[in-house]
Amino acid sequence: MQFVDKDLKSVQEARILVESARDAHVLLKEYGQQDLDRVIDKLMSDILIEIPELVDLEIAETKAGVKKDKLKLFEEFLPILEDKLKNQKVIGSLKENSHNQIETIGVSLGVVAVLLPTENIILNSLYATLIAIKSGNTVILVPQPRTEKVVARFYSKVAHICQESGLPQGAIGYMENTADEGVTQILAHPDTALVIDIGVPKYFDNNQVVNKPMIYGGTGSTPVFIEHTADIVQAAKSVVDSRSFDNGLLPAAEQFVLAEGVIANEVKSDMTEAGAYFLSDSEEEQLLGSLFLDEDHVNPLFVGQSATWLAKQSGFSVPENTKVLVSEKPYIFDENPFTNELKCPILTFYVEPDWMHACEKCIRLLKTKRNGHTLAIYSKDEAVIKEFALKKPVGRMIVNGPASFSSIGINSTLPVSLILGGLTTGRGFISKNVVAENLTYQRDIGYTKPNIRNHVQVQEVTQEKDISADKELLAKVLKKIMDQ
Amino acid sequence: MQFVDKDLKSVQEARILVESARDAHVLLKEYGQQDLDRVIDKLMSDILIEIPELVDLEIAETKAGVKKDKLKLFEEFLPILEDKLKNQKVIGSLKENSHNQIETIGVSLGVVAVLLPTENIILNSLYATLIAIKSGNTVILVPQPRTEKVVARFYSKVAHICQESGLPQGAIGYMENTADEGVTQILAHPDTALVIDIGVPKYFDNNQVVNKPMIYGGTGSTPVFIEHTADIVQAAKSVVDSRSFDNGLLPAAEQFVLAEGVIANEVKSDMTEAGAYFLSDSEEEQLLGSLFLDEDHVNPLFVGQSATWLAKQSGFSVPENTKVLVSEKPYIFDENPFTNELKCPILTFYVEPDWMHACEKCIRLLKTKRNGHTLAIYSKDEAVIKEFALKKPVGRMIVNGPASFSSIGINSTLPVSLILGGLTTGRGFISKNVVAENLTYQRDIGYTKPNIRNHVQVQEVTQEKDISADKELLAKVLKKIMDQ
Repeated sequence: MQFVDKDLKSVQEARILVESARDAHVLLKEYGQQDLDRVIDKLMSDILIEIPELVDLEIAETKAGVKKDKLKLFEEFLPILEDKLKNQKVIGSLKENSHNQIETIGVSLGVVAVLLPTENIILNSLYATLIAIKSGNTVILVPQPRTEKVVARFYSKVAHICQESGLPQGAIGYMENTADEGVTQILAHPDTALVIDIGVPKYFDNNQVVNKPMIYGGTGSTPVFIEHTADIVQAAKSVVDSRSFDNGLLPAAEQFVLAEGVIANEVKSDMTEAGAYFLSDSEEEQLLGSLFLDEDHVNPLFVGQSATWLAKQSGFSVPENTKVLVSEKPYIFDENPFTNELKCPILTFYVEPDWMHACEKCIRLLKTKRNGHTLAIYSKDEAVIKEFALKKPVGRMIVNGPASFSSIGINSTLPVSLILGGLTTGRGFISKNVVAENLTYQRDIGYTKPNIRNHVQVQEVTQEKDISADKELLAKVLKKIMDQ
Repeated sequence: MQFVDKDLKSVQEARILVESARDAHVLLKEYGQQDLDRVIDKLMSDILIEIPELVDLEIAETKAGVKKDKLKLFEEFLPILEDKLKNQKVIGSLKENSHNQIETIGVSLGVVAVLLPTENIILNSLYATLIAIKSGNTVILVPQPRTEKVVARFYSKVAHICQESGLPQGAIGYMENTADEGVTQILAHPDTALVIDIGVPKYFDNNQVVNKPMIYGGTGSTPVFIEHTADIVQAAKSVVDSRSFDNGLLPAAEQFVLAEGVIANEVKSDMTEAGAYFLSDSEEEQLLGSLFLDEDHVNPLFVGQSATWLAKQSGFSVPENTKVLVSEKPYIFDENPFTNELKCPILTFYVEPDWMHACEKCIRLLKTKRNGHTLAIYSKDEAVIKEFALKKPVGRMIVNGPASFSSIGINSTLPVSLILGGLTTGRGFISKNVVAENLTYQRDIGYTKPNIRNHVQVQEVTQEKDISADKELLAKVLKKIMDQ
């Protein structure tokens, strides 16, 4: 039998991948944190020289994003990540008590399957691989259809480096035949311990996979509120730069701008100054006509394209230095197509009378399509910031910073991570930035400790006795305990 | 139409329950931690007087366990839990930074569905309800078939107390028609945010439910190793008392005893002294014959019965003060039925030449049926304890204490909880003791922070330029960054 159908080939590959990864994990369990850290050191230094070529290949295959930005992202992200990983212990003995007794042990989970996104493939593949190795797991990279080639190239480089540095064969895997049947097989396989889905919602929403710990980290539709106390020039520039970076491909890029009424005109003119182009009604109609395939689906050719390209493709022209296209809306239309997940430099602009209305609007925006995991605010009023933070259904809120970068831990207090937990989008069990520790479980060691409270012995109450008397007695006794 | 089939009635009830709980959660979101704590205070004090009657009803319905023990468990567990809940903030602002800026916010998840076990129903229902309220969630209690009556009674008491204390109607729900179709409906409903399955593996293993964060907390099959440095008399008594408490119904009750060779006889005689009865081969055969319905399934009538009852039912007699039946085995038989989850006072006893062999045996026992989430050791040798803790696939290890109690936080350093995360049994995403915080997500507030490292600007590399020169340049630049 020479010929095997595509779906079966994919299923066969899936089985072999999971079994190899499982077997490699048996060996990997013998590696301590230092052994793993050595692999990471080597991988982080040896992969650098390959990055420009890999990014070229990624852009050639996906035709999305901006090379200069992608390289800049590597430059900013990797040193912070390296610092973080260097000073971190996630497996083995993590904590001792004051008597030098072991209290907590970090343990790897096993085989981690990673569903890669269609954008920033190399950086996502590298990040997922690094946190998997850091936490002693084996990893299977599952590319999206039509991006197999770039992941294959990445894999061949990484597998080589990892094997050279002593990682067991099969510890890093990559799927070549990505038919749905095979992907489902990987996800449902009993030896797959954890699934990390980086922005491929269909594997959640179609209910194809079952009862497995799953982490989801997709693209959010981030609303940003500019309050009247904000540094408006900085805020306007920050939003435009953040939204347009890599043509809008970062997972928490801003999608909605809400400006407080008293400063709305200033915000608009400062945004224009920074490279925003406010669309006329007819231009907006043209853009919508070309951007959407149907009500809810964006034309994939428009993903990661520049503002000028989007305009040209829609049949109108904008100044050459335009970085983002802005649609101003008086209120939220129920059928507003701009509330869909948009991975290109388009913003919707609303004017709100005050921060409380902005609060309401943000909640509505985040709930309409349930796409949101991140929120941003520009303000110098700590009380407003605090109030604003309390009620929104998001996993993180960025204060006075560009959401694209702050959310992933660049120049921000948030943990460095490219995978932004999407619990608030209704998927996965993690809302925070996903880090190596999330790919482990912790074993707690319990020691005996005398109870502080005194306990009262209650004699066995036989069934024959009068129950109501029992009740009174026991209630008294229990009350006594509770009142102590 | 008067008559509705059982499955449809259950589905209808499921829908109404989830929708009511969802609507109640909208109101509950306005409650602060203090409001919720007031409800908890009232519930914890008002429910006490009802407990003896509820426990009577539970024993009458399940015909399992020991009333005296169950009441003792309430007495020990509730005061510790009360202390814990009192000093804990899980929703609202949790953490501020040194500038008094808000950093972390705890947020309730929404509707929490709880699949109750068939044993310790009242205590589990109460614990699940308390941690759900503490964390601002609404809860739906789903009893096992044939235990609806006791949960109904519990529910009517609790719902009354909660409504009196101002909790919105529908915040606590209880399922009356527990057909599989209805239960599945609850678990798969888009408005169900979290499922806590307390020991009903079929909802994981049958893959009936999909892509929802699920916590599993079942009964483990705890191995306990008694090393030669242990206080043997104390260890032997502790194991027998712990295993026989409530006729073996606590989730981490010991199931396998491994004694180091040099002290094995002492352990045996001390265990006998403490109430253990070592079975002869023929008695063991009789016990197996009556205990198992087939290879893997324990006769439910034997769950939670006393050692003397088990013996009598199997056709042999044991001294009246017998607390546990012990089957001594020279090695692990592949088909040993005693490795199944056993919720009755039976132990298997192995002799091991040293702690390293015991280590291996524990791992094998834990992996055979993948039932284990807890391990115990008696030893005074800190080095052995540490080594022993490192490699076992369990979420917790108990040192020198009775596993039944130490695991749930009674007289131990572990967090007080009746739900022992079962990740290591292949189910759910939590391995630790499940507490109120696990029913929330946390929103992180990110502030800008200047980067410590200097970044080098890289000019855009145009596709036309010579790629190899680019590569060299960029690699140098990146290397420079990495070397800093």
